[in-house]
Amino acid sequence: MKFDEAYSGNVFIKSHPNFEESEAVIYGMPMDWTVSFRPGSRFGPARIREVSLGLEEYSPYIDRHLEEVKYFDAGDIPLPFGNPQRSLDMIKEYVTSLLEKGKFPIGLGGEHLVSLPIFKAMVEKYPDMAVIHIDAHADLREDYEGEPLSHSTPIRKACDLLGAENVYSFGIRSGTQEEFEFAKKSGMHMSKFDVAEPLKKVLPELAGRKVYITIDIDVLDPAHAPGTGTAEAGGITSKELLEAITAISNSEVQIIGCDLVEVAPAYDHSEQTQIAASKFVREMLLGWVKKQPK
Amino acid sequence: MKFDEAYSGNVFIKSHPNFEESEAVIYGMPMDWTVSFRPGSRFGPARIREVSLGLEEYSPYIDRHLEEVKYFDAGDIPLPFGNPQRSLDMIKEYVTSLLEKGKFPIGLGGEHLVSLPIFKAMVEKYPDMAVIHIDAHADLREDYEGEPLSHSTPIRKACDLLGAENVYSFGIRSGTQEEFEFAKKSGMHMSKFDVAEPLKKVLPELAGRKVYITIDIDVLDPAHAPGTGTAEAGGITSKELLEAITAISNSEVQIIGCDLVEVAPAYDHSEQTQIAASKFVREMLLGWVKKQPK
Amino acid sequence: MKFDEAYSGNVFIKSHPNFEESEAVIYGMPMDWTVSFRPGSRFGPARIREVSLGLEEYSPYIDRHLEEVKYFDAGDIPLPFGNPQRSLDMIKEYVTSLLEKGKFPIGLGGEHLVSLPIFKAMVEKYPDMAVIHIDAHADLREDYEGEPLSHSTPIRKACDLLGAENVYSFGIRSGTQEEFEFAKKSGMHMSKFDVAEPLKKVLPELAGRKVYITIDIDVLDPAHAPGTGTAEAGGITSKELLEAITAISNSEVQIIGCDLVEVAPAYDHSEQTQIAASKFVREMLLGWVKKQPK
Amino acid sequence: MKFDEAYSGNVFIKSHPNFEESEAVIYGMPMDWTVSFRPGSRFGPARIREVSLGLEEYSPYIDRHLEEVKYFDAGDIPLPFGNPQRSLDMIKEYVTSLLEKGKFPIGLGGEHLVSLPIFKAMVEKYPDMAVIHIDAHADLREDYEGEPLSHSTPIRKACDLLGAENVYSFGIRSGTQEEFEFAKKSGMHMSKFDVAEPLKKVLPELAGRKVYITIDIDVLDPAHAPGTGTAEAGGITSKELLEAITAISNSEVQIIGCDLVEVAPAYDHSEQTQIAASKFVREMLLGWVKKQPK
Amino acid sequence: MKFDEAYSGNVFIKSHPNFEESEAVIYGMPMDWTVSFRPGSRFGPARIREVSLGLEEYSPYIDRHLEEVKYFDAGDIPLPFGNPQRSLDMIKEYVTSLLEKGKFPIGLGGEHLVSLPIFKAMVEKYPDMAVIHIDAHADLREDYEGEPLSHSTPIRKACDLLGAENVYSFGIRSGTQEEFEFAKKSGMHMSKFDVAEPLKKVLPELAGRKVYITIDIDVLDPAHAPGTGTAEAGGITSKELLEAITAISNSEVQIIGCDLVEVAPAYDHSEQTQIAASKFVREMLLGWVKKQPK
Amino acid sequence: MKFDEAYSGNVFIKSHPNFEESEAVIYGMPMDWTVSFRPGSRFGPARIREVSLGLEEYSPYIDRHLEEVKYFDAGDIPLPFGNPQRSLDMIKEYVTSLLEKGKFPIGLGGEHLVSLPIFKAMVEKYPDMAVIHIDAHADLREDYEGEPLSHSTPIRKACDLLGAENVYSFGIRSGTQEEFEFAKKSGMHMSKFDVAEPLKKVLPELAGRKVYITIDIDVLDPAHAPGTGTAEAGGITSKELLEAITAISNSEVQIIGCDLVEVAPAYDHSEQTQIAASKFVREMLLGWVKKQPK
Repeated sequence: MKFDEAYSGNVFIKSHPNFEESEAVIYGMPMDWTVSFRPGSRFGPARIREVSLGLEEYSPYIDRHLEEVKYFDAGDIPLPFGNPQRSLDMIKEYVTSLLEKGKFPIGLGGEHLVSLPIFKAMVEKYPDMAVIHIDAHADLREDYEGEPLSHSTPIRKACDLLGAENVYSFGIRSGTQEEFEFAKKSGMHMSKFDVAEPLKKVLPELAGRKVYITIDIDVLDPAHAPGTGTAEAGGITSKELLEAITAISNSEVQIIGCDLVEVAPAYDHSEQTQIAASKFVREMLLGWVKKQPK
Repeated sequence: MKFDEAYSGNVFIKSHPNFEESEAVIYGMPMDWTVSFRPGSRFGPARIREVSLGLEEYSPYIDRHLEEVKYFDAGDIPLPFGNPQRSLDMIKEYVTSLLEKGKFPIGLGGEHLVSLPIFKAMVEKYPDMAVIHIDAHADLREDYEGEPLSHSTPIRKACDLLGAENVYSFGIRSGTQEEFEFAKKSGMHMSKFDVAEPLKKVLPELAGRKVYITIDIDVLDPAHAPGTGTAEAGGITSKELLEAITAISNSEVQIIGCDLVEVAPAYDHSEQTQIAASKFVREMLLGWVKKQPK
Repeated sequence: MKFDEAYSGNVFIKSHPNFEESEAVIYGMPMDWTVSFRPGSRFGPARIREVSLGLEEYSPYIDRHLEEVKYFDAGDIPLPFGNPQRSLDMIKEYVTSLLEKGKFPIGLGGEHLVSLPIFKAMVEKYPDMAVIHIDAHADLREDYEGEPLSHSTPIRKACDLLGAENVYSFGIRSGTQEEFEFAKKSGMHMSKFDVAEPLKKVLPELAGRKVYITIDIDVLDPAHAPGTGTAEAGGITSKELLEAITAISNSEVQIIGCDLVEVAPAYDHSEQTQIAASKFVREMLLGWVKKQPK
Repeated sequence: MKFDEAYSGNVFIKSHPNFEESEAVIYGMPMDWTVSFRPGSRFGPARIREVSLGLEEYSPYIDRHLEEVKYFDAGDIPLPFGNPQRSLDMIKEYVTSLLEKGKFPIGLGGEHLVSLPIFKAMVEKYPDMAVIHIDAHADLREDYEGEPLSHSTPIRKACDLLGAENVYSFGIRSGTQEEFEFAKKSGMHMSKFDVAEPLKKVLPELAGRKVYITIDIDVLDPAHAPGTGTAEAGGITSKELLEAITAISNSEVQIIGCDLVEVAPAYDHSEQTQIAASKFVREMLLGWVKKQPK
Repeated sequence: MKFDEAYSGNVFIKSHPNFEESEAVIYGMPMDWTVSFRPGSRFGPARIREVSLGLEEYSPYIDRHLEEVKYFDAGDIPLPFGNPQRSLDMIKEYVTSLLEKGKFPIGLGGEHLVSLPIFKAMVEKYPDMAVIHIDAHADLREDYEGEPLSHSTPIRKACDLLGAENVYSFGIRSGTQEEFEFAKKSGMHMSKFDVAEPLKKVLPELAGRKVYITIDIDVLDPAHAPGTGTAEAGGITSKELLEAITAISNSEVQIIGCDLVEVAPAYDHSEQTQIAASKFVREMLLGWVKKQPK
Repeated sequence: MKFDEAYSGNVFIKSHPNFEESEAVIYGMPMDWTVSFRPGSRFGPARIREVSLGLEEYSPYIDRHLEEVKYFDAGDIPLPFGNPQRSLDMIKEYVTSLLEKGKFPIGLGGEHLVSLPIFKAMVEKYPDMAVIHIDAHADLREDYEGEPLSHSTPIRKACDLLGAENVYSFGIRSGTQEEFEFAKKSGMHMSKFDVAEPLKKVLPELAGRKVYITIDIDVLDPAHAPGTGTAEAGGITSKELLEAITAISNSEVQIIGCDLVEVAPAYDHSEQTQIAASKFVREMLLGWVKKQPK
């Protein structure tokens, strides 16, 4: 036993101890200050790591083992409570530094607004990128009751940043009338209700493109992800989301980063939400990190 | 801010403040005294209202907005604890008064026995009505261990009141041998296990008819509705129930009222049961109120 | 039954339906954006109201009945998610308007930062007021990691506004070294660990003075109030807090308003925290409203 | 292993397998149909038995071992759901038969109304009996909103049956104004808020008398018994209740039977309420059964 | 009422009181000492029995009633805490004695390692038997970090005992790379991810064979069985598992015994896991006991 | 931000990053394989660390700050599931190595049996040591139903190792008759029910002695520590335990190490047990580490 050499702290299973040697970096964004319903996703990243110790290191979905990927778990960015602007600035700065060092970023939320500064950092490096967005909510508002910094707005901002035609949303089953109208008129892609089937149809169109992927855990039905702030009945199964992740792994897309957000553990005493999320992270590590552009 | 004008209390989202101007009335029936397993559905109506504030007001399922319907939320009828007969009398009296005033009744339970006095009130106004019943349980008993007033009996009473051939049950996966035999012999319609597909086949047959619809939340699998008294494995998803509600909205049926019963919040700390229920109520408001007979 | 006349929504038990005729006004401040540990107190006011229906209307502690006090329950102020400054502005504006109309304000939080704008509104009307502060935490920081608007700062701001010698803290068992040093040097009163006994000693000194009282539910041991964001072991019992409330009722103090904050229901599935809080509100209504200055 | 001889089912630890040879009989009354707030005490008896397997068989409080007492666990009386009158009749009939056979009855509730038929059965055998009542609630109403059969009435009925001067209530901290006035005028004994100290003062006065004891678990503070329907802040500790039970064991009172009611497990996921209740039952068995009149 | 004749304790609904007259015996194995993640399945058997009282006695899946089968519920084997070897010896001894007396064994776990001694007992009587294994996990390890007695190993031991070609696994979605390679090379049958469809294809091949069936509740998605130690996202629905059980009932297989393991109630406050498990046990009793070889 | 330098994983708040420079070492023993009631304390150490981030770094109890002590958090010893003997060997080996390096050991359990190998390691270095034991249970059994390695035995073993007259137990309220008789006859010190007062009387007697302290969290009443395996009603408050810890800090005792065991988070969704435990650890760090012998 060598307990005196390094912390055996709460990191994602099989994380590599050395930042420099790692291809990918897992980082947490413990922020939930702008949510309109149930807060608590600030504890999502820590709990996803915690239950990862119950995971197998091998995936029968794509026949790969975590030893085939080198990733560092950087812990959570210490975001300032209740200050959305400074939090977003810190996230952007951190992701930019990861990109400068050639790391593949895997972000864990936190509320969905955290994806906005990531988009901003990514687009500076990859101006021609596209976004795949898997979520129950359209997140296409311009503001939320006057607040432009809201967890309901990041995909609208992505449309502004990247051009709506480069944004692909799947599984959407909730939003305002204006959001659905925007989706229709703007030229973006939106598949309502389902994920795996429409995604498989779209992936060939994205072959060879640089794509960032953001997944909101609430795309799952609350039966499969009760631990989330804005649970929305009528969602997909965890089996379907695994199928979607695998389809992306097996596609010709060049993946440049990803995040998984809105795990709020306080509402799920069975821990099934974080258990599912940690499995999704394993599949992203195994299937997506190797697909990054050289 | 005008906090001095009216209560901003716990009402279903976007309720109209004026009873007279409303087409529909939401009312709660907080009664659970005759249940044979886990009580607690008395708190169902209050919690469905409470979480409705997390709902969007627009439905992408039928492209309609809650502003298109005027409904009043009357709160809960103050039923006497432990007295089934007086409780049922009060419900019948209340629904009768709603019908006299031309209101579309949307009842929230409470145990399923609350539908019995509603049936009685409805049939006085609409003697040729039919009932669509969506439930895990047949509810076709004549009595429960000697008690004729039991949550296991309301559909049998509906058969007595309306003629069994006017009762259509869907999703049934639990009951006594006698109940299933009655279903076969009586001339009623019973679809076991599934809801959306068999319902879509039956709806054309009901075109133009006046139909009351009663939904027991336990038709959902306990995965989707853990918060109910008599959870029964092997049920449908919330996605399938949304599909069924939408199919009714899009049918030629004349809807004369509806209820949603058996939400028991104490068994669901994720609140997903009431969150799903409040979405179903939204869809009923949007899709069914307009389909009432003139 | 007169369900067509008024909402029977979620208001504190026995609330008076008319604002103008009421002496006191209960109002909620559903804000938790700056908390440093577990969020969720935004749902505190609604749940305190909800469980108030389980309360008796009579108090054996001071032999008084809720019919002896007229109070209006105004519901929750619709605070903007994630925007502390605008939220505080709205609270100050609302309390100021209550004071202008001669109402006794009873605020329900929400995080403790909501007391800051209340202090500001109160001191404009009552420049010579004092504050009684009952809490586990000193709340005497100047800022929290650079953020001046934090739930750790309101009592420090009260010292700035009123003069430290007019601030009386009880039950304090947590804070930084700087906060405890400030308490010693500033001239304020701070009783550590206990509430009822030291308070009884101080009350004669406050006789005849105008006093605002703010209670943080976490002064209770987590055994008695598990539903709070920053639970702190080693606290007092609910029996002791009732004794303290009663002692104030029986004192010669002129009470000008009060609040009860930091009830976060998601962490307490037994609902005992809000059940206790609703009892405290009943005792405040019965014992404190009548003690306001003419 | 002799698994083929008898059920090893859910009985209170160390129960004697033979009814005839037993001095005392534990029986459950799974009824909660008249409760005005949170139902669920029907599952109390089963859960108290279940966790009894975590108990030691020896008590350091009175230095006695469960092998010194012979008691049979009869399971739950199969009460008819939602029918208070028939339920009470069945309880009275059962307790009467126990008394005829010379058994010491130990009843487990269920709601407190179950004590009423027990009182009726007891007084037929012991016309000069007294009652010790330990509870948060006075339970002295004549009816509850018109219903004479309510969980708020049993102690008033006891006063009618036995003479108010033979009823001794302890720990009372909730009730209507009328109930507290009745307590004052009727000649009954009522100690507010506390149990152990006032009880110790009263016990000498009851020396040599035949006494039935009814304990409502909600006399404990919700911190110690969150699993109950009508939790009431400001209660006693489980340590104080153990002290009270021991004081009765050590007194000169002749105990003729007892019950423990209102354990509602659904509201306590830690199971601490039933764990405490099972310890109280052990202490009653050890300290009270031997004190019955010959 | 005849409460004096026999315990009415916690047994599976409609259990026969007489061991000798029964065809089948339900027995619990409350062991969880070797689990690598969340313990607690020791309480599974007791809670499955407890909630069985909420079940109907009739199955609409195969149109049969529990009165058509005679089964005795023997309670739990009192296994020694923390001693795997002695526990397994006791289980083997008990099952052997059941087989000698011609009883059909229905075992309730506990962790999956309990199936190992059952396999050993069964194969002594039925050397040409096959095993159907329904599970999320391959359970094909030779040891777990050096411990040969681990909940990850029983199916590997079954392959050793019976020949891998007589082992049929369904629903597997987790394991080490070595386990999946063993599955491929060993000649065993393994269907990944799904259960009902592949099982229906395999059943004709097993016609006339003696088959033991072991079901790990975690084959269900955590949405349907949150109460289990090693929850694994991406599983099947309870509807699919009911379909699989019914397919076996309707097949030409000769069933010689079965078990259902890994229900861990502490992680599921809705009780849906044990509610589903008790329904599966009912279906096994109704569909499988009659299919045993003469 | 320097996220690339070191894990920011789950360590106790303010842990020092360097083992060599630290005076004290926190280490976890995630073992619960021999518990006789509810397992789950294997997750205790991780959750105590997790909630430590909600703690203040300063203690008003002894006016000291965590910066005054240097301690390293070594994480959890990777104990082999279900193998008590190997687990105990690993613990002894680890603690021995800590003592060789002059570190003050602070162990987090896990079940109480983990203290046995610690005692063995300690007594080799400090043959004249004494033990202070704070617990609800006597833990004085020679074996548990034949198993000598059981969570009910460690204090008996301590008596064997150190001489009973060097063992001081406080707060004991549960055990077998034999255990209490042993306590009387053996010459050990046992204070029943209470902790702070009897401890203060004993501490002068221990002045100058080398003392190891073991605290079982279940000495607290279940109200204060619901998250434990063998909850026992009638316990002390967290306030009293803080008083006891402070009294030891202020005494003339030479403390040589300590542990805190039996935190089982699954039974406490409010997290109050681990929140209290982390505060106790802070107080031990602040008050006890400095009191070690040179």
